[in-house]
Order: sequence, then C-alpha cells, then structure tokens
Amino acid sequence: MMKAFTKQSLLEADSAFRRDFVNALAGYKSLNLIGSKSHAGQTNLAPFSQVFHIGASPPLVGILFRPHTVERHTLENILETEYFTLNHVHESFYQQAHQTAASYKVSEFEATGLKESYKNDFFAPFVEGSRVQLACKLVEKQTLQVNGTVFIIASIEEVHVDAEGLRADGSLDLEALGTVTVSGLDEYYVGKRLAKLSYPKPGKDLEVLI
Amino acid sequence: MMKAFTKQSLLEADSAFRRDFVNALAGYKSLNLIGSKSHAGQTNLAPFSQVFHIGASPPLVGILFRPHTVERHTLENILETEYFTLNHVHESFYQQAHQTAASYKVSEFEATGLKESYKNDFFAPFVEGSRVQLACKLVEKQTLQVNGTVFIIASIEEVHVDAEGLRADGSLDLEALGTVTVSGLDEYYVGKRLAKLSYPKPGKDLEVLI
Repeated sequence: MMKAFTKQSLLEADSAFRRDFVNALAGYKSLNLIGSKSHAGQTNLAPFSQVFHIGASPPLVGILFRPHTVERHTLENILETEYFTLNHVHESFYQQAHQTAASYKVSEFEATGLKESYKNDFFAPFVEGSRVQLACKLVEKQTLQVNGTVFIIASIEEVHVDAEGLRADGSLDLEALGTVTVSGLDEYYVGKRLAKLSYPKPGKDLEVLI
Repeated sequence: MMKAFTKQSLLEADSAFRRDFVNALAGYKSLNLIGSKSHAGQTNLAPFSQVFHIGASPPLVGILFRPHTVERHTLENILETEYFTLNHVHESFYQQAHQTAASYKVSEFEATGLKESYKNDFFAPFVEGSRVQLACKLVEKQTLQVNGTVFIIASIEEVHVDAEGLRADGSLDLEALGTVTVSGLDEYYVGKRLAKLSYPKPGKDLEVLI
C-alpha cells in the first residue's frame, strides 16, 4: 500500500521524522571518510555521504557540506589547506566510521582508534586499511543560494586501490572490496551484485557481463 | 596489494578505463529514474545516479547533469516545464531502467515497456511499480565553471512510498523496498543491511538499533 505525503504535510510533521525521511528519499548513498589536517597539525576525520562524480578528464570529485553541522572542521581544514583524502569504509570499521561523527575535542583518529597513514608526502592523512583511498585538492567552492549548502569541487591527485577490487576495464568490484553504503544518517549496508550490464542500444537485448 | 595511480597516469590511461575507474571511485550511488514530459506531450525516462539530499525544511533534492550526454532530453524538459518525478528502481525492473539510457527516438516508456502513472494532476509521469516516487519542481540551476556540469535544485512537492518500507521514525528500509544501487555506469547491486546505529557521542558505546 502506497502512503502519500505532500510538501505541506512534511513541513507540519515532527522535525526528526522529516529529517530522517527526506534524507533517505534518494536511496543508497556513497560513504567516505574525509581525512584532513589544519596548518597547526590537528587531524580530523568525518563521514560523508554526499560525494559524487564530476568528471574524468581531468578527474574531479564533488562534495556537499550541509550548513551548520558537525562537519565544519573538515570544511575549514579544506578551505585553509586545500588538501584532503577520501577513504572507502568497509565492514571491519564502519562502526568506528560512524563514531567519528561524534563531537570530539581531540582528533577523531585518536578518539576512535582508526590509524592515520601518510603517502608520498601528501599533506592530509589517509585511513589505514581503507581499500580505496583518494588524495584530493580543492578546485572550486560554491554556496547554494537556496539554503547555504556549500559545494566543493576537487581534483583527484592520487588514487590507491586494492588490486583485488580493480578490474582490467577500470571498473571496481565494490562487493569484493566490501565497501559500505549508507541510507539516511545512520543505517549501513553492503552491496550484493545483481549484474554488470552491457551498453544499452535501441533494439538490442542487454547482456549480463558479470 | 594496493595499486597507485597519479593524476598524470590517469590522464594518460585509455579513455574508457579512465571513465569507468573515476566514475566508480566514490562508491555506491543512488539510482533513480527521472520521468519528464515536454510541453508538446512527449514523455521521457532516464536513469540518474547523481541525486542527493539538499535539505529537509523545505524538502529539497539536487541533481547533477553531465554536459553533452544522452540525458539532455530530461534536462530540457525540466527547464521547459519545471516538473519531473524521481522513482526508485527495484530488482524487478532494473534491466529496463538500464535500457532507458539507450538513444531512442520515441518515449523510453514506450520503448522499454515501463508504464507511465499519473497522480493528483501532477504534470510529469511517475513509473508504475516504483515503491518510492517523488514529485519535484525546479527551484535553482547552476553551471559549474570547471567543466560545464549542470546542477539542478528542486523542491519535493509530493512523496509516495510503499508503507512496507517506511518506519515510524521516518527512516526507510531500503532492503525491504528492494531498492537498487549502482556503481559506475552499468553495475547494479541491492543492499544487505549491516545495522542501523545509535547517535554517536564521545565516550558512549554505539548501539545497534536494527
């Protein structure tokens, strides 16, 4: 049975209900830990579910930062230093990843036991054990007029990926990597593959490639 | 074993490898079919994996449109009429959803056999059988300087959700709904829940709520 909500009924609903409901509507979201560091040397780690593909040539990634949230240290570090890392989250440490969203006065690395890892003199810390790690550099910042959401675009400077999850054609096997996906603010899932499908053309049947 | 890529090595890689690799880097993506209709009455249906949460009060959603892609009819219809729908994709019709990306001269509804559904005089067609359907209206359009990507923000005017997947707290059970998620351009997964976790606080152990 389908249940209907109008914009008006959502605006009149309990605010916690509205927050969790609207946040979940788009479906599964990517989950990454963003590692950053201030010029003063304080590291920061926070979970983000709003990271997306902007372009491949050059490789670009976009991130949305909600206004007035606990994620401000991450945004401040990125604006101050221009550098940060993106790190896939796996089943073995998704609870620690969730815990990094708590309001700590110390580094979330220290607080949760996740380990900083540094590579090739890149300024920001990676998360040790993450099987897909990106080194990123700030390119552009925009603020949405409608509600002050901040939109960051960054270039992908380096990628470190576990060879077990990388196919010859460039695609990633997220199931083999054990990458975690999130719904809303607090519900975590792993993926179970249905199929990788052939390129769609009019009048041609799809093939299951994998 | 971790394999490393620099920005330079990605720029020098085969373009199909680079496209599939960079597209997959953020992890699992939401998957929605966007239903739209021109003023002339031609309907259009296309898969989108770049839909995200902008805000709950008022309920807003954002969508990225890549420049120069097959998705242009959708964007043109939205800019022309302001109205469109977002529809979750489920296992029972994910192959038809993929097929809507083919370059048809007729409506993708007609071509793939997915059925149009109209509700409450809303202008744009919903996808019959989708268990999470959103009626949306254009609010703001921005173009990213860096590569011409178009960023649309829309208000959520109505939501229709299968009661089986809606919890009392407002969260959605995406596993019960059978919602599909996508990696890259062509690889489809369903989710298997790890846990819904309690709100993270310093010094407090997390609880598994579900």
